[in-house]
Amino acid sequence: MTKYVYNFDEGNKDQRLLLGGKGANLAEMTNMGINVPYGFILTTEACTRYQEEQKIWPELMDEVQAHLKQVEARIGKKFGDKEDPLLFSVRSGAPISMPGMMDTILNLGLNDESVVAVAEKSGNPHWAYDSYRRFIQMFSNVAMGLDSEHFEELLAKKREKAGVQNDFELSADDLKDLAEEYKVKYKELQGEDFPQNPQDQLIMAVEAVFKSWNNDRAILYRKMNEISDSLGTAVNVQQMVFGNMDETSGTGVAFSRNPATGENKLFGEYLMNAQGEDVVAGIRTPFPISHLEEDNPKVYKQFLETSERLEKHYKDMQDMEFTIQEGELFLLQTRNGKRTTSAAVKIAVDLVHEGMITKEEAILMVEPKSLDQLLHPAFKAESLKTAEAVATGLAASPGAATGRIVFTADEATKAKENGETVILVRNETSPEDLAGMVSAAGILTARGGMTSHAAVVARGMGKCCVTGAHELRINGQEKTVAIGDMTLTGKDIISIDGGSGKIYVGELETEAPKLAGDFGEFMGWVKEIKDMKVRTNADTPAEAQQAIDFGCEGIGLCRTEHMFFSEDRIQSVRQMILAQNDEQRQNALDKIEPLLEQDFYEMYKIMEERPMTIRLLDPPLHEFVPREEKDIEIAAKNLGISVEDVKKDIEDLAEVNPMLGHRGLRLGISNPSIYRMLGRAIMQGALRANEEMDCDFMPEIMIPLSTDQKELKYVMDEVRDEIEMVFEEKGKKMDYLLGTMIETPRAALLSDEIAEVSDFFSFGTNDLTQMTFGFSRDDAGKFLQVYLDKKLFERDPFISLDQKGVGKLVELSVENARKVKGEKIHLGICGEHGGDPATVKYLYNVGLDYVSCSPYRVPIALLAAAQATVEAKNK
Amino acid sequence: MTKYVYNFDEGNKDQRLLLGGKGANLAEMTNMGINVPYGFILTTEACTRYQEEQKIWPELMDEVQAHLKQVEARIGKKFGDKEDPLLFSVRSGAPISMPGMMDTILNLGLNDESVVAVAEKSGNPHWAYDSYRRFIQMFSNVAMGLDSEHFEELLAKKREKAGVQNDFELSADDLKDLAEEYKVKYKELQGEDFPQNPQDQLIMAVEAVFKSWNNDRAILYRKMNEISDSLGTAVNVQQMVFGNMDETSGTGVAFSRNPATGENKLFGEYLMNAQGEDVVAGIRTPFPISHLEEDNPKVYKQFLETSERLEKHYKDMQDMEFTIQEGELFLLQTRNGKRTTSAAVKIAVDLVHEGMITKEEAILMVEPKSLDQLLHPAFKAESLKTAEAVATGLAASPGAATGRIVFTADEATKAKENGETVILVRNETSPEDLAGMVSAAGILTARGGMTSHAAVVARGMGKCCVTGAHELRINGQEKTVAIGDMTLTGKDIISIDGGSGKIYVGELETEAPKLAGDFGEFMGWVKEIKDMKVRTNADTPAEAQQAIDFGCEGIGLCRTEHMFFSEDRIQSVRQMILAQNDEQRQNALDKIEPLLEQDFYEMYKIMEERPMTIRLLDPPLHEFVPREEKDIEIAAKNLGISVEDVKKDIEDLAEVNPMLGHRGLRLGISNPSIYRMLGRAIMQGALRANEEMDCDFMPEIMIPLSTDQKELKYVMDEVRDEIEMVFEEKGKKMDYLLGTMIETPRAALLSDEIAEVSDFFSFGTNDLTQMTFGFSRDDAGKFLQVYLDKKLFERDPFISLDQKGVGKLVELSVENARKVKGEKIHLGICGEHGGDPATVKYLYNVGLDYVSCSPYRVPIALLAAAQATVEAKNK
Repeated sequence: MTKYVYNFDEGNKDQRLLLGGKGANLAEMTNMGINVPYGFILTTEACTRYQEEQKIWPELMDEVQAHLKQVEARIGKKFGDKEDPLLFSVRSGAPISMPGMMDTILNLGLNDESVVAVAEKSGNPHWAYDSYRRFIQMFSNVAMGLDSEHFEELLAKKREKAGVQNDFELSADDLKDLAEEYKVKYKELQGEDFPQNPQDQLIMAVEAVFKSWNNDRAILYRKMNEISDSLGTAVNVQQMVFGNMDETSGTGVAFSRNPATGENKLFGEYLMNAQGEDVVAGIRTPFPISHLEEDNPKVYKQFLETSERLEKHYKDMQDMEFTIQEGELFLLQTRNGKRTTSAAVKIAVDLVHEGMITKEEAILMVEPKSLDQLLHPAFKAESLKTAEAVATGLAASPGAATGRIVFTADEATKAKENGETVILVRNETSPEDLAGMVSAAGILTARGGMTSHAAVVARGMGKCCVTGAHELRINGQEKTVAIGDMTLTGKDIISIDGGSGKIYVGELETEAPKLAGDFGEFMGWVKEIKDMKVRTNADTPAEAQQAIDFGCEGIGLCRTEHMFFSEDRIQSVRQMILAQNDEQRQNALDKIEPLLEQDFYEMYKIMEERPMTIRLLDPPLHEFVPREEKDIEIAAKNLGISVEDVKKDIEDLAEVNPMLGHRGLRLGISNPSIYRMLGRAIMQGALRANEEMDCDFMPEIMIPLSTDQKELKYVMDEVRDEIEMVFEEKGKKMDYLLGTMIETPRAALLSDEIAEVSDFFSFGTNDLTQMTFGFSRDDAGKFLQVYLDKKLFERDPFISLDQKGVGKLVELSVENARKVKGEKIHLGICGEHGGDPATVKYLYNVGLDYVSCSPYRVPIALLAAAQATVEAKNK
Repeated sequence: MTKYVYNFDEGNKDQRLLLGGKGANLAEMTNMGINVPYGFILTTEACTRYQEEQKIWPELMDEVQAHLKQVEARIGKKFGDKEDPLLFSVRSGAPISMPGMMDTILNLGLNDESVVAVAEKSGNPHWAYDSYRRFIQMFSNVAMGLDSEHFEELLAKKREKAGVQNDFELSADDLKDLAEEYKVKYKELQGEDFPQNPQDQLIMAVEAVFKSWNNDRAILYRKMNEISDSLGTAVNVQQMVFGNMDETSGTGVAFSRNPATGENKLFGEYLMNAQGEDVVAGIRTPFPISHLEEDNPKVYKQFLETSERLEKHYKDMQDMEFTIQEGELFLLQTRNGKRTTSAAVKIAVDLVHEGMITKEEAILMVEPKSLDQLLHPAFKAESLKTAEAVATGLAASPGAATGRIVFTADEATKAKENGETVILVRNETSPEDLAGMVSAAGILTARGGMTSHAAVVARGMGKCCVTGAHELRINGQEKTVAIGDMTLTGKDIISIDGGSGKIYVGELETEAPKLAGDFGEFMGWVKEIKDMKVRTNADTPAEAQQAIDFGCEGIGLCRTEHMFFSEDRIQSVRQMILAQNDEQRQNALDKIEPLLEQDFYEMYKIMEERPMTIRLLDPPLHEFVPREEKDIEIAAKNLGISVEDVKKDIEDLAEVNPMLGHRGLRLGISNPSIYRMLGRAIMQGALRANEEMDCDFMPEIMIPLSTDQKELKYVMDEVRDEIEMVFEEKGKKMDYLLGTMIETPRAALLSDEIAEVSDFFSFGTNDLTQMTFGFSRDDAGKFLQVYLDKKLFERDPFISLDQKGVGKLVELSVENARKVKGEKIHLGICGEHGGDPATVKYLYNVGLDYVSCSPYRVPIALLAAAQATVEAKNK
């Protein structure tokens, strides 16, 4: 038979899933001999069963009674006793700390009869009746869901009548009257008497905790924090201790170290003669914890020792609640404390230096995603306090930016030239907007998801970006953006928060990231421990340098297409695409080739011995064609044909589903000369760089979008043939690798055949996700949010790899590749998922050699990779 | 050691792959005791080895010599003998009959010396020198590749000089001189003497055959007919017999039955005193074979008996070549004869009636694809003789149509009302063009592939359609279509051939299909034998009736979206899509629902007990929105908002990649009310039909585009809930099935989970192909042709299922489905591949319960299914 109830001394800290975080730690502390008010715990499994049955079942009642008896015996008091009753606090306690769950009910067990005895016995009727009226109020509100307002109103009237400002100034009689009035109100609202039987009170409170698991706030919180609905919450039933008994009593909260900075010094606050809620209520100003040393040196010393003991025991900074009752210290709760990222790093580093934990343990203490906070500017907390967001989009690329609205890339570039800070606001961005994106302080789009063009490029640049802000209605022609009833123009200033997706009107102050000195040391350990490589996706020397500074070990994806857009070559690129004959095309290619060679040369010089995978042209050609009338005229002139004909040719290039169209190696099949030119430019750049450098490197050329061995081999043969020509012309050779992206389901399904002709695979999980689900990442924003809202999907598959579906294809490919080529084939990923910690860990276990992500996510990926190594060892 | 040479009596008819078709049959006839000039065969393996080594290897020479000796011994003549030489014909003979291969070389073995002896010994110098000069000419041209013109010129001069019209009027001396002149010309062109050594002649001829395997014509033919390049050709070296020896000699070709009609009567023609080429050359008019009965009753009887014997032996109509030499009949070749489809059907039926073959054998005798010929009108052969195609597109839907060009669906509808026949010419079609497509006699599009909207819909209607005619430049605004330098307008008449993809300017005469009476009987056997069901894709009662007439056993795909476009509901559909609030949406749904109910009711009434799978709305909603200004105005009025706002909403619905966008069950997730309405309409229609009919049926409701169990279940629960409401309201119930399409790779990968909640799977192989390859079927036309041209793909994966890649997903799903539910889950396919015979056979073996295809392909699918059954049994 399942055991649904545990006494505190029956559990331990590792039973968090069963006993909830709070319960497990109360049990642990009890067993450590720390002074904890005794009690028992109803397990999360009881909660789960309650959710199914929607009522308390008799056997649970029996079990509770049995444990109640044991608790009474240990404490030496009886629950429901009329003279000296055992009182309880009842609290929820989920496995994962979760605001939104049921609040605490204190003083449970009091009734009309016992309160009299307690008042008498304690000689403190004020305290006794205050406790009783608080209990009624809390029970009514927290357990029964009655609106607090009703009770606050009665309280206010009472204060008025008594002519006092504060509740604690009310007399014992006032409080006694108030309890009576509360009970009347309860009956009025609830239709029945306030429960006088402590057993009834207990069961109703337990049931209220169970019910609170599915209240709106809790559901929302779980959704936002990706917490499973099936976890359930435990219920902690704990003997009451009273910080409000007298001036030798008190209550407080403290962290064993500073949670904002990580400094190794007790941090917190307390109030004497108060109950827990008074500390946070803000009516009286609590003292800093250091003040307790003067107030009560003995208790302070005791608390300091307990704090140190707990920290050593838990090997982490502790967040504690305590109560002092008549000079005796009780611990009510301990848990690993929440902290800022920089505190997390400092604490982890300090704990290692203090010999408390190993480096491996240290790197598990920092959430990889949180490193983002250390790498980008943010809005000042004060500015945010008064600002109200007018709309919210997707937090596509972290950072904060403030600036005047501009609607086109050109405007952005001009504004930058004028030294002005602007936010580029568009429905969506395209590669043509690149220069404008570089110039803007931030990018805001109305459409597109987390992996839309804007999002991907912005993350690559480490630039703040909010995408998919559907509330925005942008009129590019009239240069207005409407949000609800408000219409903004190019004269307005907005602020966008890429960390929260929030959009504000007006200017907000930002602050630069403060990289704590410990960060470097911490990242050193990370690199020491991890055994999967982390590369970056970078197309320019600046991006590459940034990623190297952040610790990347190579480039996993260098996109040649991004090199096509510079002003000095775009005209030639267009001539190449719109060429009317082979001569015109070759002519254009000949103009582009030396420019690209120089680009590759510069990249190789920066990367030195680090590997760099260069992907041949991937996007459909129509992404490069001119859109503006003047550009079309230039193209027509260059090609010697009419503007009309250019327009027709451009129209011919348009596609219904460009994502599934004439792109990737399909371009290399229909126009081998483009891929040949790229192969030539890469190899000439590499040979030149190699000559000038001391170190050796091996160019890696990557063919995108393969579906088939024969198709891939055709393109590879063309490239190889051109490279052989280069070798012959230059009279020197270099080893190089020729591989492909696995980004169509068919390539994954036939990866054994494809591995035969490939030196490496790089999983393009963006496209693989698009095709496996049939989700266009440019369009999915519209419906994917509904999926998440309706809890059909736990995560956005464009953010965190769909391990079950897309992962199956990745696993199959890895298995096939290893079967065919063993360790000789390099396997990596260059999709956006390469910067997602959960995906990085998954791919480590799948057996990839490296992940590649945008420069600003390199530290995150490094940490995730290191954690994966440690977690695998710990298994 | 590999045996590369076989005497005729060493082989048999089943060795077609090794000995070629011609050689295998010569061997078979030899062993049957039929009078065949003796000889030997060099195998296809010798050809393959030759292709690798690019030269004749010594051991092959030795083997040829050994066999030559045996042949000489059997015949009693010597090759190269100076007095009475054994002469050979040398012919190519591939495993699959293949025009484009090397022509025959006759009289090989003659030289300056032996021709004198032959002339003397035969007493027929005219014949001897004619044979020699023919040999030189054929050898020079066929084996050495010298231009025939040179020799024809000398021949013409000789005729002129002799003052005769015809070659056979030249004297023996003329011919002797001519042989000399030919040799001089040979030396002039070839730079060496004409080979006098018969052994050299033989080897050079053999090598020429091998080389011809890779000549341009042969390569092209193989590509067009999907014949593997690795097969190779055999070489037949056969003793010469002479039909041109005298008036008791002759030559001819005959079929054992009429290849055009199938009539069981010897059919063919012959010429006395002639060699084979004279029959086809057309200089003398050959006699019909029946005339031989008068000319030479003995030989005629002998030939008739041989023909019957061969037919019985081969169990099929034979195509034979024969020669009569001095009154003696020789068979030179026999093979199963080519025939028209109606002849094929008649012959198959007759052979069964004659007790010669079983029904199972009969159905293997008709090529499933060829049934198309029996089901559609075609251009008259005479019309085609003089017509020249101005462009060629894809043969998207068979049939032939002639009519005036119209550029819009509206024009087509109006023309139809005026009794005019028109061809709808567009860049591509959309669901909005449906009415126009119905009204047009044929559809021609410049874009799109074999499974574009135009192609799929046209095939569904059995309407002639040519798609992807890239040479066309259509200007919809100016209503012109340019092809090269020519510009056509709405005044011009064109003709399009959906069977060949050809486009003609002007009117061509068509003829209606003649369904032979045997067709019904044949199809009866087909249905008797096959054990996989064949359903159809039909959206209207007319289509359903057509498919039933063609033998379909249910509907595999009834697309609700096609029901949304009728004039009486499109406004409501638009209101539903553009609704500004729930009330407007529900309002629209309430208007549509009874109309759809009536549609479904009518479909059920027609289908009776046959199953029908109805697919809930699949295409993205923007396919339904108004495009024309007046329609937008109507919508704005209906919705009570401005035209501007309607336009904005329409713009919001646009997608970058609609194929991967907000469609399929994603609509059911974001707008459950649409799917609920459909569920209601289906069930109400079904209940009503069921009440009125004697037979039982079970509605099958299909959810498109699932990717996940949870997602699918959500939609199913909504639909189920609405249906339960219908049951309650109507007070009656019906069993029904709720299933899904497997058309995203993810659904296939997770098909075990999806099977748990599905009553059936229907493979949507169109979309599955698009997503597995990453090929948009609307755009792939542009590059897929390059893939086929470059031989990277053997077949268009949109026409014949990619068994290796996409098939892997189908197989996985079938395996998963059976594992989870055994035979309880119905498995079918409703993609266009369901009408492709190769795919049907493949899917039979994979274990599907049914295939579904457009009505006009039902007979094809039925036959393919039956063949699959027989072929599986024969294995």
